[in-house]
Amino acid sequence: MSEATERAREMNVFDPGCTSREILEHATGRWGGLVLAALVDGPMRFAELRRAVAGIGDRMLAQTLQRLEADGLVSRTEISTIPPHVEYDLTDLGRPIAEQVCRLIDVIYRQLPGIVAHQRAR
Amino acid sequence: MSEATERAREMNVFDPGCTSREILEHATGRWGGLVLAALVDGPMRFAELRRAVAGIGDRMLAQTLQRLEADGLVSRTEISTIPPHVEYDLTDLGRPIAEQVCRLIDVIYRQLPGIVAHQRAR
Repeated sequence: MSEATERAREMNVFDPGCTSREILEHATGRWGGLVLAALVDGPMRFAELRRAVAGIGDRMLAQTLQRLEADGLVSRTEISTIPPHVEYDLTDLGRPIAEQVCRLIDVIYRQLPGIVAHQRAR
Repeated sequence: MSEATERAREMNVFDPGCTSREILEHATGRWGGLVLAALVDGPMRFAELRRAVAGIGDRMLAQTLQRLEADGLVSRTEISTIPPHVEYDLTDLGRPIAEQVCRLIDVIYRQLPGIVAHQRAR
């Protein structure tokens, strides 16, 4: 199999075994997309993120961040202030994905009046 | 509250009560995003969709389609051929969202080599 074929095979979001499907789920799942979108404006501490993503619990936020860190989309930096604190930020890998999630949210905002009208008319 | 304020308030994806958050979940959740992306190239029958979105079960596909129909993003048309069949298609409301999901998938494809390298290096 040529490298190009293998690459094309590897990159098929419709294939359950493809990493891209896993990443799509992490980047858009119930909380992942909101965490990425929240970080677009700059780094945040854990408590700031928890406030920004209303409704997320401590444990779920910790899990979501761990998964995004494992994918290399979010970085975790310990800042040695007194007291020390931890900051989460988008990596170079994560930023384009987070920006694209924001664009998806913008499109949803744009379609929202029509969606709400449709839901109400049913 | 002015209409603009109400609209701005209504459209906050970080607010658990905002419909946009619900739509983001439907349009990107475990299966919703893949179903929308699969429909970008044209209408499909149920069995075609099930083949396209590998790994989805009948029941899950039916549920996902019902949710996307309820949001007004996907249409369901009974075609009176012999035998009759049902076709699913993107609506005018759903198409821009589906196209944006495809752009997100493209960005993930672009970042995938870096993500896989990061996962392997851990």
